[in-house]
Amino acid sequence: MASITLIGSGNVAWHFGKAFVAAGHRVDAVYSRNHSNAKALADLFFDCRVAYDTDFSKSNSTVFIIAISDSAIEEVVSEIIIPDNAIIAHISGSMSMEVLSKFSHYGVFYGLQTFTKGKELTISEVPFGIEASDEASYSKLEALALSLSKKVQPINSAQRKVIHIAAVFACNFTNHLFSISESILKKEHLDFSLLESLIKETVQKSLEIGPQKAQTGPAIRGDEKIIQQHLDYLSNEPELQELYKLITNQIKKSND
Amino acid sequence: MASITLIGSGNVAWHFGKAFVAAGHRVDAVYSRNHSNAKALADLFFDCRVAYDTDFSKSNSTVFIIAISDSAIEEVVSEIIIPDNAIIAHISGSMSMEVLSKFSHYGVFYGLQTFTKGKELTISEVPFGIEASDEASYSKLEALALSLSKKVQPINSAQRKVIHIAAVFACNFTNHLFSISESILKKEHLDFSLLESLIKETVQKSLEIGPQKAQTGPAIRGDEKIIQQHLDYLSNEPELQELYKLITNQIKKSND
Repeated sequence: MASITLIGSGNVAWHFGKAFVAAGHRVDAVYSRNHSNAKALADLFFDCRVAYDTDFSKSNSTVFIIAISDSAIEEVVSEIIIPDNAIIAHISGSMSMEVLSKFSHYGVFYGLQTFTKGKELTISEVPFGIEASDEASYSKLEALALSLSKKVQPINSAQRKVIHIAAVFACNFTNHLFSISESILKKEHLDFSLLESLIKETVQKSLEIGPQKAQTGPAIRGDEKIIQQHLDYLSNEPELQELYKLITNQIKKSND
Repeated sequence: MASITLIGSGNVAWHFGKAFVAAGHRVDAVYSRNHSNAKALADLFFDCRVAYDTDFSKSNSTVFIIAISDSAIEEVVSEIIIPDNAIIAHISGSMSMEVLSKFSHYGVFYGLQTFTKGKELTISEVPFGIEASDEASYSKLEALALSLSKKVQPINSAQRKVIHIAAVFACNFTNHLFSISESILKKEHLDFSLLESLIKETVQKSLEIGPQKAQTGPAIRGDEKIIQQHLDYLSNEPELQELYKLITNQIKKSND
């Protein structure tokens, strides 16, 4: 069992706090610049206090998890003091581990997931990427991750950056395509839910046989007649037309 | 129970044939220019013959389902003769119903799904869009669809075209983003399966709360530092960089 201080009180702190407690750990304290958010999160746990100060030198916590936005990390880190034997780790997909190099023991505790406050998720299926300043800290962060999930592996800062870029394509950009799709359907008074079964099957197939083999549709078939019909339809929306052309050409090339 | 002739022996004919038989209908005959494919499909069903001729005027089938590629439909249709009281329908997302107007009773039997030969799917969850030349034919095609799926609704040719465009964005293009993601990860010797949990959550969230609300990531946050890092990383792959820029700008605008 680890004694943990959460630095941050947003989506990710909320999910991690709940997951830590569910796994039998103790959340000692929550620190956040937003005191009322910190209190709301601390209130979810037994014996958890709100920390109003960044001097944790007297804290009993053995692990400090920084779960705040990337842009705030450096400033908050500059203020924080922790006990010399404690470990501090951030959870960011993009920040280097070395932003924490002023501490004796530090690392990264990266959960590859999109966290939405209030929406439960199966943390045991979330892959965790661990990186640490020293072997002992790695072992401890690894053990902490393994108490939450069965998928834990070492991932260094360079790999983490690349994973983040891949995730932007596969998740944020995919979600944008869904938005486009929804807006196209709306104009014909059709509901986005019409595509639910198709989207689920597309994703399942892609994960099962790999996206290269799973590709279907007019671009991979080289069906110029249909492609032209679609471009004509999109002629009043030059941005969508441009995106349609760009991706269609990339899919065609991938078939060469 | 309907007596059905399948025209075509590819992915979709395979899925529909199996689904019709599972729902208690009879598949009388399979016609395909590729005789060995036709035989392989006909062999899956009791008392199903291979048709070598397009003159079905003596056929006992009451429904003829055309499940062939869009580009072949017009030519095959020009050759086909069916009994005057039978209904003929194609399953295409893009072809107008009127390509069948030479027949007395015709329609469209459109299953909104991506069909892969050999991969089972839950046909009861597939939405069907029905269109027909006359009310009686609509009723019959609707009843046939309802025997397969609980989600059946009228969808006219114009709507079908728009659904197909929306599906290209939400499915074919999404799958292409997965391909990009996989290739980015591969270069760092990381496996695409790392993103499985993240992709599933992204899709589930988007379908649950709608893609507009579900958007996350650097573009919607306007996190220029991260966006620039990603663009720098992609500088050796101008096509991916262009796609990254285009979608990022569209997401930013959607936030205005």
